[in-house]
Amino acid sequence: MSTVWDQRYAQRVQRIQGSAIRELLKVTEQPGTISLAGGLPAGEIFPIEEISAATQRILEKQGQQALQYGTTEGYTPLREFLAQQFQQQGLNVSRDNILITSGSQQGLDLLGKILLNPGDRLLVESPTYMGALQAFNPYEPEYIAVRSDEEGIVTEELEPALQQNPKCIYALPTFQNPSGITFTLERRQQLVELAARYGVPIIEDDPYSQLRFEGEAEPSLLQLEHARQPQEQRDQPYEGNVVMLNTFSKVLTPGLRVAWIVGPAQVIRKLVLAKQGTDLHTATLNQIIAYELTRTGFLEKHVPRIRTLYRARRDAMLAALEEYFPDNVSWTHPQGGLFLWVTLPESIDTAQLLKEALKYRIAFVPGAAFHANGGGSNTMRLSFSNVNEEKIEQGIGRLGKLLHTTLWQA
Amino acid sequence: MSTVWDQRYAQRVQRIQGSAIRELLKVTEQPGTISLAGGLPAGEIFPIEEISAATQRILEKQGQQALQYGTTEGYTPLREFLAQQFQQQGLNVSRDNILITSGSQQGLDLLGKILLNPGDRLLVESPTYMGALQAFNPYEPEYIAVRSDEEGIVTEELEPALQQNPKCIYALPTFQNPSGITFTLERRQQLVELAARYGVPIIEDDPYSQLRFEGEAEPSLLQLEHARQPQEQRDQPYEGNVVMLNTFSKVLTPGLRVAWIVGPAQVIRKLVLAKQGTDLHTATLNQIIAYELTRTGFLEKHVPRIRTLYRARRDAMLAALEEYFPDNVSWTHPQGGLFLWVTLPESIDTAQLLKEALKYRIAFVPGAAFHANGGGSNTMRLSFSNVNEEKIEQGIGRLGKLLHTTLWQA
Repeated sequence: MSTVWDQRYAQRVQRIQGSAIRELLKVTEQPGTISLAGGLPAGEIFPIEEISAATQRILEKQGQQALQYGTTEGYTPLREFLAQQFQQQGLNVSRDNILITSGSQQGLDLLGKILLNPGDRLLVESPTYMGALQAFNPYEPEYIAVRSDEEGIVTEELEPALQQNPKCIYALPTFQNPSGITFTLERRQQLVELAARYGVPIIEDDPYSQLRFEGEAEPSLLQLEHARQPQEQRDQPYEGNVVMLNTFSKVLTPGLRVAWIVGPAQVIRKLVLAKQGTDLHTATLNQIIAYELTRTGFLEKHVPRIRTLYRARRDAMLAALEEYFPDNVSWTHPQGGLFLWVTLPESIDTAQLLKEALKYRIAFVPGAAFHANGGGSNTMRLSFSNVNEEKIEQGIGRLGKLLHTTLWQA
Repeated sequence: MSTVWDQRYAQRVQRIQGSAIRELLKVTEQPGTISLAGGLPAGEIFPIEEISAATQRILEKQGQQALQYGTTEGYTPLREFLAQQFQQQGLNVSRDNILITSGSQQGLDLLGKILLNPGDRLLVESPTYMGALQAFNPYEPEYIAVRSDEEGIVTEELEPALQQNPKCIYALPTFQNPSGITFTLERRQQLVELAARYGVPIIEDDPYSQLRFEGEAEPSLLQLEHARQPQEQRDQPYEGNVVMLNTFSKVLTPGLRVAWIVGPAQVIRKLVLAKQGTDLHTATLNQIIAYELTRTGFLEKHVPRIRTLYRARRDAMLAALEEYFPDNVSWTHPQGGLFLWVTLPESIDTAQLLKEALKYRIAFVPGAAFHANGGGSNTMRLSFSNVNEEKIEQGIGRLGKLLHTTLWQA
C-alpha cells in the first residue's frame, strides 16, 4: 500500500539496509540449532547476584539520583575512575577526556555524526566489524578497505590508502571482530606512525583486549601514539590523534549498554553535544551499577573467569576444526576474544553454504557482510563464546561434514 | 592548540552547538538557588522500592536474558503490552508497530535520521521543544515555525506553511514543553485534516498527556487521524500519517531511558534499522523493569500520585505569579504537565534577565532557545514539577521583585 511516508525518506535511508543474512539467522533461535553465528557473551557467567546486590545498594543509598536525568557526559565518579585507569597507563587524561556512551555502538554513531560528510573517505580493515559499517553508513562515507593478514592490517597497502586522503581510520586491532586477529607490535607502530605522518586520526575500537587467553598484551594504538609525542606534550592534557572505544559489554554484561570513549577534550565536547541530541544521556542506574562493580575490584576477579571459560571454548573449536574440517580450509588462531575466522576455497560461497548449514541445524555468519567494498564470499565468522564445548564439537562436526560434501561436489 | 581533529569535523557540526544558556544554568546546581529551569520530574516520588523489588525479581527469574543483548525492536512482551493499550483505543496496531527507544530523545534522532535530507523543511510550533530542535539540527533541516496561541497551533497560519511543502510536522499538542499549552479539539482536527490534505506526515510527541490535573483528555492526533480513515482502512494494520512518541520518563522515572514509538510498520522497520546502527538496542533490564511495573498495574496507582503532587505545585506557582508578578506580564494556565510559559513586555530580554536572576538565586529558561527561527526573547519557561510549594512561592517572589525593578528601570 502506498502511503504518505513512501516519498518522504531521506537519501541516506538507502544506506541503512536490512540484512538478508540477519533474516536467515533468525532461524538459529529454533531449538536444536547450534549457533556459532551470534557474538553473544556467555550468559551463564553473568554476575547476576552481584548486579542484583549492587542495584539494591545503589537504590537504597542514592535511588533518586540513580533514577533521575543525568548529565550527558556521564556519571562523574565513573568518568573519574576510568580516567584514573588511563592515568595508570601514563596517559594524561581527566574526566574531560571521557564520555560515557550507550554501548560502543553509540560511540561509533556519534563519531560518524561529528566527522563524516557524505562522500568522505573512511579507511577500514578488510574484513572489519559489521556494526561499525552499520553505524557509519547513514553518514554516507566511501570506504577505503585495506587488507589484513594474520599480523593485522597490511602496512604496505596502508600508505597508498592514506594517500587517498581518508577523513579517518577505523581499526579494531585486538582480537578483531570478525577475524580474531591481533595486530603485532610492529604493525601497530607502523599504523600509528603513518597515520601521524598523513595527519589522519584513528578510531581505535577496543572491546575485547581484556579477554586475552595467552601471550603478552600489546600496547593500544592510543598508548603508542601517546608515547610518540615529545615529553613536554605528554605532560599536557591528551590532545592526540587517537580516540578509543571501550565497553563493559564483554567484561560485565552487554544488556546494561554502558561503554565509554576516551579522546582529546575538544573531540569529547563535540561528542557530548551530539549525544545530547541523540539520547540525552546513558541510563543513570546502569552507569552506577558498572561503576560499583568496577570500583570495588569485582571485575578484577570476574574477568579471569570469563577468560578461562572462553579459552576452553576456543581450544575446543580449534581442536574440532583440526579434526573435522577439510585440508584446504584455513582458520585463524585467536589469542583472545570471541571469534575466529575461516577461509574456504574460493569456489565456496558461504552465503549459499549457510542455507545448507541451517538444514544441518548449524549456523555461522558468512564473511561478505564484514567487507566494506565487497569480497570475502568464501569466508565465515565463527563465535565460540556462547556455546559449550560439547556443542562446539557437534557443531563443527556437522559443518565439517557439510563442507566435505560441498567440496566434493564442487 | 591546533590538532589533527580541527579540520576533520563534518559540516553538520556547525548545527550541533552548545548553549550559552546551558552553561549559565549550571550555576543552578549551587545550593541556595531555586531552579525553575530544569524539566526534571520530582525525584521524591520515584517508586524506588518498587523498582528495587522488581529488579530483584527480574534478575532472579530471568537474569541472563535481562543482562544479555536483546533485539533492536525491543523486549517483545513490552511491545505487545503497549500494542494492546493502543488496541484498547481502537487502533489496529501490533508489536510490529512499536519500537522501544532509549528515551524519546532517541526517537526524535531516529526520525530525523530516516526522514531529513539537508535543506528539507520541517514544520514546528513556535515555541517548540528545544530537545527536538537539538535532535533534528544535525540533519540540517530548514524550519517553518508556526505560531501557537492559548488554543494551540494557529490554524490560519498552518495552511500557508503547508504550502511550503514541509517534509514533516513536529507537534507536541498536550501540555507542551515549553508552553504548557494543550491544543483544543478543534485545532487538533484542523491540524490532522490539513496535514492529510497536503500529504504531510506528523510526528506527535506525547510525553505528558498522562499528567492531566483537570478537564477532559483530548484525543491524540494519532487517534483523530485514525478516526478519519474509512472503516475498511481502520480494520487494516495501521498505516496512517502519524507516528507518536511516548515515554516512561514522566510516569515512572527518566533515568531508566525507556520510551517507545508507535507508527506504521514500514516506518518502524526503517527506524529499527537506523537504531541498529545507533545503539543496537535499549538496555534490556530497563525495558523489563518498565514492563513489570506497567503489566502489574503499578503505574495506574502511581500516576495519580504524580498528578496530585504536580497539581499542587502548579497551583502554588499560579497563585504566586498572581501575587508577585507585575500586571503587564502574562502566563499560561496549563491543565497538566510540568511547565508554564511567561510572556513579558517586549522591552525585556529574558537571557539578560537570567543573569540578574541568578544573582537573586533564582533560575528559569529564557524562551529564545525554544524558537526555531528566532524571536521569543521576552518569554521564559518555568517548571513547577521539581520544586516544593514553599520554594515555588519564594522563587516566584524573588523573580517578581526583580521584574518590578527591571520594568521600573526600563
